Amino acid sequence: MKAFTRAAEMQTASLGLRSGGKSIGFVPTMGALHEGHLSLVRRARQENEVTVTSVFVNPAQFGPTEDYRKYPREPARDAQLLEREGVDFLFAPPVEEMYPPNFQTYATVEKVSAPLEGQFRPGHFRGVATVVLKLFNIIQPHRAYFGRKDAQQCVVIRRMVRELNLPVEIVVCPIVREPDGLALSSRNYYLNGEERRAARVLYRSLCRARELVEKGERRTEAIVREIRQLIEREPHARLDYVAVVHADTLEPVGRVAGATLIPLAVWIGRARLIDNLLIEESGSGLGFHL
Amino acid sequence: MKAFTRAAEMQTASLGLRSGGKSIGFVPTMGALHEGHLSLVRRARQENEVTVTSVFVNPAQFGPTEDYRKYPREPARDAQLLEREGVDFLFAPPVEEMYPPNFQTYATVEKVSAPLEGQFRPGHFRGVATVVLKLFNIIQPHRAYFGRKDAQQCVVIRRMVRELNLPVEIVVCPIVREPDGLALSSRNYYLNGEERRAARVLYRSLCRARELVEKGERRTEAIVREIRQLIEREPHARLDYVAVVHADTLEPVGRVAGATLIPLAVWIGRARLIDNLLIEESGSGLGFHL
Repeated sequence: MKAFTRAAEMQTASLGLRSGGKSIGFVPTMGALHEGHLSLVRRARQENEVTVTSVFVNPAQFGPTEDYRKYPREPARDAQLLEREGVDFLFAPPVEEMYPPNFQTYATVEKVSAPLEGQFRPGHFRGVATVVLKLFNIIQPHRAYFGRKDAQQCVVIRRMVRELNLPVEIVVCPIVREPDGLALSSRNYYLNGEERRAARVLYRSLCRARELVEKGERRTEAIVREIRQLIEREPHARLDYVAVVHADTLEPVGRVAGATLIPLAVWIGRARLIDNLLIEESGSGLGFHL
Repeated sequence: MKAFTRAAEMQTASLGLRSGGKSIGFVPTMGALHEGHLSLVRRARQENEVTVTSVFVNPAQFGPTEDYRKYPREPARDAQLLEREGVDFLFAPPVEEMYPPNFQTYATVEKVSAPLEGQFRPGHFRGVATVVLKLFNIIQPHRAYFGRKDAQQCVVIRRMVRELNLPVEIVVCPIVREPDGLALSSRNYYLNGEERRAARVLYRSLCRARELVEKGERRTEAIVREIRQLIEREPHARLDYVAVVHADTLEPVGRVAGATLIPLAVWIGRARLIDNLLIEESGSGLGFHL
């Protein structure tokens, strides 16, 4: 595995690969890698001739009161894991390389960035869109891999790629979960033992939502009420939001119909965790992705 | 010359050229082509194996009260001129191809977009940056050519390219002028005979500024006062702004020193015209670009 910290050097390598006819698969990460990230790397390896992973804790996507400074950083362990997975290139720039002094250029995806995470983390998706756009320009991937845990992020990136005519295929991969259902996240590291047990309430409440829909419930109101109740009953949990929205526009819907997303964000101790249930209408009925 | 109206088809052709090792020179235009545009095309032809020109009147860079609808459109004449210049590809998409319904992704270059044109045309440079970014992604150029008449546009694009890590070289070309000094612009078509004569005041006042600086004047205040007076004396002219600014940051400066830009915008009848003087410090003294 070859590691780069300079954008210009990484870009030169990527442009060389591209003009040499190699397909490039890209997995952007903020490091503190877990099996969720590694599942993306494995998929990228299967589908491309060359795999590039970036490790960059992006300050532009953290609010001033958020966990940018304490976000887990384990560069040596990350590099070792990626090497072991057969990643070809690691791009791990310092902050000043990505955001030099007087930096002032941003990408914004307006409507789909506004609700849900956007309401609780203003500016978050502007930071995400900007860094992903920069990374795409540096790494020049044919395909880029994202986890569906960050469902709204996937919607924002997919829309940005389409609307800015980027020649990149966005591949959204399944959520990887712990045996008890907790979605893998670097922020799970913030949880102590008791909080870790409490964190199961995210998955449990989404399972309950799936059960309701399977039994015929379609009303947003009823589904949301049930999830709220489950989370309110968990003493360590505090709900930021739960919603039932259209899976592509993220606009609220009154009933489950067609492609529907049920995302939620819950504070457990000092960790703010997110998870979601995606419901798709297939020929034979509803399909659930949890 | 091959003409495309669909972004996907243009992009497929460009990616093919790139992976075939061909260098691509790109000249973005809004059509109604004049010798200024053609000077860019000739430069692109000299420096690249393949030349692509786009013709697209970009609604996103016009304000609601501006001249989007009456902006001159001469697609057949434009195509003929480009064919004659040996352009290889013409990209001329319809509006809906560039801005499909529910379009919501924008690029903004914050600080350098704010003053000068930005104050009189809010949102203008967001529209410019967005369409140029889209066109770069579609056309995948190695080099892109812009005229220095739109000096602030060049600053905005150059900064966007650097900050978003786009692998494109921005080539800024000299202003092409009529024999009496008027900078070529598609908006000159709006002028009647009397207004056309009045329009000489832009060039004349910039020549006067150059003369003052050559004679040793360095104070912004004195230079601006002189230009204002010349323009106020012209009955058909109404000044939007004149300023003395740093050529890269566009921040106001109190004195001419180092790379300095003196841009102005003047209404002549229903035409809003811009022009500028660029002053650069060279080893032997000051260099003037007019």
